Amino acid sequence: MDSAQLLDILGNENRRRILQLLSRRPYYISEISDRLDVGPKAIIEHLDLLSSVGLVEFHTDNQRRKYCHIAHNVRLDVFVSPHSYEVESEPVEIDTKERKRLRQEYGSINALSNFSDELQRLMSLRQELMLAQRSTQAMISELMDVCAETIERISSDYLEGEILLSLMRGGQTTEALSEELNIPLYEAKKGLYQLKEKGIIKKDREKWHVR
Amino acid sequence: MDSAQLLDILGNENRRRILQLLSRRPYYISEISDRLDVGPKAIIEHLDLLSSVGLVEFHTDNQRRKYCHIAHNVRLDVFVSPHSYEVESEPVEIDTKERKRLRQEYGSINALSNFSDELQRLMSLRQELMLAQRSTQAMISELMDVCAETIERISSDYLEGEILLSLMRGGQTTEALSEELNIPLYEAKKGLYQLKEKGIIKKDREKWHVR
Repeated sequence: MDSAQLLDILGNENRRRILQLLSRRPYYISEISDRLDVGPKAIIEHLDLLSSVGLVEFHTDNQRRKYCHIAHNVRLDVFVSPHSYEVESEPVEIDTKERKRLRQEYGSINALSNFSDELQRLMSLRQELMLAQRSTQAMISELMDVCAETIERISSDYLEGEILLSLMRGGQTTEALSEELNIPLYEAKKGLYQLKEKGIIKKDREKWHVR
Repeated sequence: MDSAQLLDILGNENRRRILQLLSRRPYYISEISDRLDVGPKAIIEHLDLLSSVGLVEFHTDNQRRKYCHIAHNVRLDVFVSPHSYEVESEPVEIDTKERKRLRQEYGSINALSNFSDELQRLMSLRQELMLAQRSTQAMISELMDVCAETIERISSDYLEGEILLSLMRGGQTTEALSEELNIPLYEAKKGLYQLKEKGIIKKDREKWHVR
């Protein structure tokens, strides 16, 4: 499942409500329909879509009742700003050896309150990491703002500006640049040539870099 | 803008393409329409929606051409797993004093290559933080898995299980629990009473905790 698929899925309120419900325990279809007050036909359509991308799976209990549950851990990070649009989604996975070690460690916890303490510790660690990430993000935005001003001063048109802003993130080939900026190859070549003539960028091993 | 609004907005492919385009530089409407090969009427509708939630703003240049640009830094984090559904969106902001300091620091950078180095340093820091966050998330998932098994063993029905899983994340009042689990107050009370009678939970300053 790529991030576009995931965003399409999460763009619907009822699908979000279904996932929220299933994140608490497996449900059978009529139960979901009752809880959310949405007709079973609509619920089935949403579940089919969710299962077609592998986010939800079905299983049958010993009374032959068909339950569905969330199949995977999925993470989605979106950052939108005047100078960046970043969408990343990845399954959250752990390697088998590490999983085994954790299972063993967690398996030895016997009191619920110890589970709760450990969970709260991990949740606050995650929160701290999120804040650190957010502040890094804010710094990147500030830097990009200042950088965009400089770029505007030295570039003679939008094309040059876009190319420079993109090269700030790292060296790129002509082809990759044309693809990223959604412009024809000849246009990318034109802009790169102009910037090279001005002495602002240089080519090194097939990739363009700012000087 | 709350996270539901943001997800509704990002659920449309053309709106994502518009934001991606605007994250490179301000565009005027017919330019967006040309670049994305989407009719201007549809583009205007999307832009109106984007501006109604404050994500996009319009400005006019000195040739009276109406441009639009991304107005804010927004971050969205989604995590979906068999035991959690978390959606958080927040504007990425910096306090005025810190912003001033950063502006000063970044303003003294004069070579593009130094901007580029600093940007790449911050981007790799952000990447590291993201990985750390992801691995914490994976640990939380493992812990929740083991914890859910224990809870299944000791709870006599789904209601008790849901309540316990929720209390693992921290103490809750009866009211907050009923709201979170989307169940009537009397049902929450019933489940809490059962669990209290079994000696699994206790009440402390109006909040329920696992023992």
